[in-house]
Amino acid sequence: MEHALHLLILITAARLLGELFKRIGQPASMGEITAGIVLALIAASPLAVPLIAQIPSTPFLEVAAQFGIFFIVLLAGMEMRPYEVTSQSAASLGVALGGVVLPLAAGFALAWAFLPETPLKFAQALLVGIALSISAVPVAVEVLRELRLLHERVGRMIVSAAIFDDVIGLVLLAVVLSLIETGAAPDAPEMLLLLGRVAIFFVIAISAGLFLGPPLYRIVAQFRIPAPRFSALMSLALALAVVAEALGMDFILGPFLAGLFFNPETVGEEAYAGVKTSLRDITDGLLAPLFFISIGARVDLGAVEAIPLFLAALLAVAFLGKLVGTGVPARLAGLPTRDAMAVGIGMSGRGAIELVVASIALEAGLFNQSDELVTNLFSALVITAVVTTMAMPLGLRAVLRARSISKESTMDRP
Amino acid sequence: MEHALHLLILITAARLLGELFKRIGQPASMGEITAGIVLALIAASPLAVPLIAQIPSTPFLEVAAQFGIFFIVLLAGMEMRPYEVTSQSAASLGVALGGVVLPLAAGFALAWAFLPETPLKFAQALLVGIALSISAVPVAVEVLRELRLLHERVGRMIVSAAIFDDVIGLVLLAVVLSLIETGAAPDAPEMLLLLGRVAIFFVIAISAGLFLGPPLYRIVAQFRIPAPRFSALMSLALALAVVAEALGMDFILGPFLAGLFFNPETVGEEAYAGVKTSLRDITDGLLAPLFFISIGARVDLGAVEAIPLFLAALLAVAFLGKLVGTGVPARLAGLPTRDAMAVGIGMSGRGAIELVVASIALEAGLFNQSDELVTNLFSALVITAVVTTMAMPLGLRAVLRARSISKESTMDRP
Repeated sequence: MEHALHLLILITAARLLGELFKRIGQPASMGEITAGIVLALIAASPLAVPLIAQIPSTPFLEVAAQFGIFFIVLLAGMEMRPYEVTSQSAASLGVALGGVVLPLAAGFALAWAFLPETPLKFAQALLVGIALSISAVPVAVEVLRELRLLHERVGRMIVSAAIFDDVIGLVLLAVVLSLIETGAAPDAPEMLLLLGRVAIFFVIAISAGLFLGPPLYRIVAQFRIPAPRFSALMSLALALAVVAEALGMDFILGPFLAGLFFNPETVGEEAYAGVKTSLRDITDGLLAPLFFISIGARVDLGAVEAIPLFLAALLAVAFLGKLVGTGVPARLAGLPTRDAMAVGIGMSGRGAIELVVASIALEAGLFNQSDELVTNLFSALVITAVVTTMAMPLGLRAVLRARSISKESTMDRP
Repeated sequence: MEHALHLLILITAARLLGELFKRIGQPASMGEITAGIVLALIAASPLAVPLIAQIPSTPFLEVAAQFGIFFIVLLAGMEMRPYEVTSQSAASLGVALGGVVLPLAAGFALAWAFLPETPLKFAQALLVGIALSISAVPVAVEVLRELRLLHERVGRMIVSAAIFDDVIGLVLLAVVLSLIETGAAPDAPEMLLLLGRVAIFFVIAISAGLFLGPPLYRIVAQFRIPAPRFSALMSLALALAVVAEALGMDFILGPFLAGLFFNPETVGEEAYAGVKTSLRDITDGLLAPLFFISIGARVDLGAVEAIPLFLAALLAVAFLGKLVGTGVPARLAGLPTRDAMAVGIGMSGRGAIELVVASIALEAGLFNQSDELVTNLFSALVITAVVTTMAMPLGLRAVLRARSISKESTMDRP
């Protein structure tokens, strides 16, 4: 009975805070994380009754959050169109690369300067860099749609560059997880071997996506059982997850790549839309809120007091790294200054994928050290994700609203 | 990695056997159970490699099967229309009551004659009776639709009576679970107290469904977060599950009643269809196959050798109880003999809800005794469900085909 009651409190609290945040122009996921932070504070307070105190550690939350990661990443893959990204101009590619390289390097350097000398230091510093190199596609898309700029150059540039950055981030995460296993900064031959394994995985996954997926979906379309394509997608995602783990990478690359190759071209427009809608409902309505609230419940706000300097520096690097790393290439590509700034701001939110990366590193034991900075690193990364993701819509609206309103008045009346 | 590989093997094996069974005119769920039986046999054989041997006990299967029960019962509730059942004639009600009372009494009597004298005997015998009183609505609906008889009197009578029987079965299950707690055949005051608690639950649940549900769904329809109705349905199902368990009944009554009151009248046709499609996809495509294969994996075919006499008697009672219990009232209500026989055969399949009932009793420890009959009771109940469910479409087609063909030739060409 406790399980049902815990789940009831978790899902209700997450969605209500999500709705509240949505009403003040913020992403629902940030409200769901906040619900987790608040719940953990209440649970830890001396006033909490035993029932409430157990909520953050209820076993179902753990499992649901795991399923949540699986479906969030699968959907992230499904909503990306490989062709859209590759068909963008060289300018977008420059923005995307700048958006990865600068935050990655700056985040790595910052962490390297602060972290204690342990065998895990290299992997930890790399993880901080990766977390900062992520961009939050869905949040940016939402704000751009609201401002009617999604299909203009600035919108397309943000979206395709952000997608590209997430792909690179997930690949680099695979590298970090391999490093945790070996437990030390790799020498050149080891690094080569590791990159070889990453390459092998992508050859297998892309071959499976291109040559195994389409006939598989064509065959199951003839099946008489209900929801055959849904099951086929699950099987392919799990199969690629098994391959990823066998090669020392994280399982999330499996659902991500399976999602990437599940698109209207391979399964038909109607089947694609149907499966996506169902996955969206179960993810948005149940699993993602539980994932976000579980993230929030594991945040220790004590990090703000424990490592204030590092946290402030992390936030500055997170924001400036994306602003400069993507804004400058956008300006060089010929965008007006205001639009180039909008690109920089639009790319600065982190969102779900950074949180997936941080929580996978947490599970993998990357933060299991008695050092004060390392202990608080997970909380610092989540706080960074929350602050940058919440600042982004405010900044983007401020920079683009004037431009959008003048556009709207000429565009909306045909 | 083992988890992902186990899940991959489970979901793929379940769906492939499901498809095979579908092709030979059998329900997919029976193929999925068979996949579980075969997998357990392979896992137990001396030839099995460790990886395969672990599959039946993989922890994810347990959790997924639990979620599977939740969604199967929620959907069973959603697909029932309370008005449809209550608006049927007194004849349907007679068929429904006969379909519960005779199998319940005969199953109870049979089990009572065979079971050892222990404090749990009353609860065990009652559970056998309840398991036999269930009817498989979805399988019957499918065969009737195929024969174009779903909307004729015989079809409507089978469907509404089968629904009614499932409702009574689930209520009686609540009684059994209370009995397991007290651990003895109750005396009159205890029984009254128990029925009082059942009544209180239904008053609360029906009030919540009628007076809390509609305004709740109306409010969340104004929400800006994605999938608000899906979450509201989850919250209501969990809340009623908490109430059910607080009153000593099983949690499945929560999702069942929440589903029953989630209908086009309260949430609108479009929202109802959308949520149902999503629930169907995740259930049919992932959770139900895992539930059915987990059921099959727990079946011990040794039961056939260990308790052959009891099993044969159970099968006979299961089949004849429904045939006589529903066929006679149908004939008395004026149906031609052939149609009355069709009603009796159509109600004789057991399907998913009996399996839910049996697996909940297993989890609750009702079969934890060293007695040979009790140990094999779960397997005997599953075998009965499988045999009656698989015999039903064959019998129904045989009885109704001639009738249907002559109908079709006059009806199909307008």
